Parts: sequence; C-alpha cells; structure tokens
Amino acid sequence: MKHIISALVQNESGVLAHISGLFAGRGFNIDSLAVGETEAPDISRMTIVAEGDEAILEQIVKQLRKVITVIKVQDFSGRAYVERDLMLVKLNAPAGRRSEILELVGLFRGRVVDVCSNELMVELSGPESKLEAFMSLVRPFGIKEMSRTGRVALMRGNT
Amino acid sequence: MKHIISALVQNESGVLAHISGLFAGRGFNIDSLAVGETEAPDISRMTIVAEGDEAILEQIVKQLRKVITVIKVQDFSGRAYVERDLMLVKLNAPAGRRSEILELVGLFRGRVVDVCSNELMVELSGPESKLEAFMSLVRPFGIKEMSRTGRVALMRGNT
Repeated sequence: MKHIISALVQNESGVLAHISGLFAGRGFNIDSLAVGETEAPDISRMTIVAEGDEAILEQIVKQLRKVITVIKVQDFSGRAYVERDLMLVKLNAPAGRRSEILELVGLFRGRVVDVCSNELMVELSGPESKLEAFMSLVRPFGIKEMSRTGRVALMRGNT
Repeated sequence: MKHIISALVQNESGVLAHISGLFAGRGFNIDSLAVGETEAPDISRMTIVAEGDEAILEQIVKQLRKVITVIKVQDFSGRAYVERDLMLVKLNAPAGRRSEILELVGLFRGRVVDVCSNELMVELSGPESKLEAFMSLVRPFGIKEMSRTGRVALMRGNT
C-alpha cells in the first residue's frame, strides 16, 4: 500500500537532507516528494509518497516526529483526503493530429500551455489515476518530455 | 535571482539524500523541490528552486553533474520555459461568504475539491505569480491549511 506522509518542517538548510537520509538509511525508496511553501514564511510542507514494509515506515515516521526541525507529521493512510498531482507533458503533435490531442485535453480538463509546429505542451492536474489515464491515451502520439510535481494532499472536512 | 534546476535522476534509494546533501553542505537553502515520476519507471525528474550566491550555485550544479545517479541537469535561468506550481488550500468559508470565494475561484480558473459547512478546499495551478495573487485575495477570509507542490518546468519549443 502506498503511504502519503505530510510533514510541516522548519524552512532551513539541511532539513531536507536529514529527512531524506532517514528514508535512505533504511533503504526505503520514495515514489514522490514535494516540498513547498506554506502561509508561514519559515515553515515548509513536505509531502512524501512511499511504498514498502509497514513496520519500517512506522519506525521512520516515529523518527521523523523526533527531529527538532519537524513540527507535525501526518500519515493519511486510511483517512479521507484530497490528493492532487500536476504534470507538464510535451507531446509530439504534427498539425494533422493536433485536433485529436486537443479533444483529449478538453475531456480531461487540461490546458495547452505551449504550441509549436510539431509539439504541444499540456498542463494537467488531478489525482494520480486521472494523470495515468491521460498518459495512456496520449502515449501513442509520442511523449517528448514530462515533469510531474508528485502528490500533495490535505485532509477532507474539519480535520 | 531564483534558479530553477531540473535533474533527471535514477529512481534509487539515497539519490535524494545525496542531492539535498550537496545543497545543505554549502548552506544553500532550497525554496521548493519536486520529485516525480517520468515515462521511464527507473528515472525520476527533480525540479529544484533555489536562490543564493550564483558562484556557489554553479559549483553545486557542477557537482550534481558528476553524481553517477544523475543523468542530466538543466538550469532554466534566462531561457524560455513554462513553469507550474499546484496548491491545495482550505479556506474559512461560512455559508454567507461562500459565493464571494467561488467568484474568485472562477476568475482564477481554480476548482473547488471539497466542501463542508464552514470550509472550502480549492485546487489552483499556474505560475507562482498567479498563486500569490490568489492567496492575497483570499487571505482575508482566513486560510486554514495549505499545501503546495513546488514548481515543475519544461523548456518551451523544440529545445
């Protein structure tokens, strides 16, 4: 099972190295990691998606909570949350096939953010399953480049 | 000046710790970092936004290029690129003020992704300036929680 772990951390040099070291030290691979600003200028939020042995992950979370620069840790597993991932993807799009791609982009509520003679760059956001579904439909056109942010998540409701 | 650095790396345990260690070792703080999947299952793309001394950053980029698990490094400074950041934000929204917020969400082409009696959760993506502009307009309503992915970027055109 994939775990989504969200941590509020002090925005200081070395915090990221320390935390990623905790995962690496136990041979735990991270699927995606996003570190972004919060409303407090000195605090960042880190969202880590990782899959692996539950017992080891529990140990890592316990260790995380002990790190002085870590303010709060949440594991979203089994709880009600909203997750989003964003993707920029550059597709092979000769003029003759452009309309087919545009139709798919519209159906997925994506946006075209750059156009040139034989390429389109598309922005798409949503839960992972939506991004995967889009990719499987556009893959036959040829994917030139792609960049994904990795997931961020927040609990639903008043939690 | 803020630098956006994009690196293709092997998706292995320890790579992230190694790279973030390179920045931390020189006391260089990272504004945002996003690590996500690419089309190749064993390769991830890492996008780092950092600000600081140009000479030190240049050294870090040189070191990055020497790391065996790093396949390619690009510095987007001064080049034509598209950048996107995604934000989930939970706003204080009592029923009487909901329509004001919904209007702003519509103007910014955001999406409401969760609703409860006194809160709205909004998804918004775009360049950093757009996200900042939205935040400054909704801040008076009260921000309960926020999570940002940090930026991803791709070069424009046939580069």
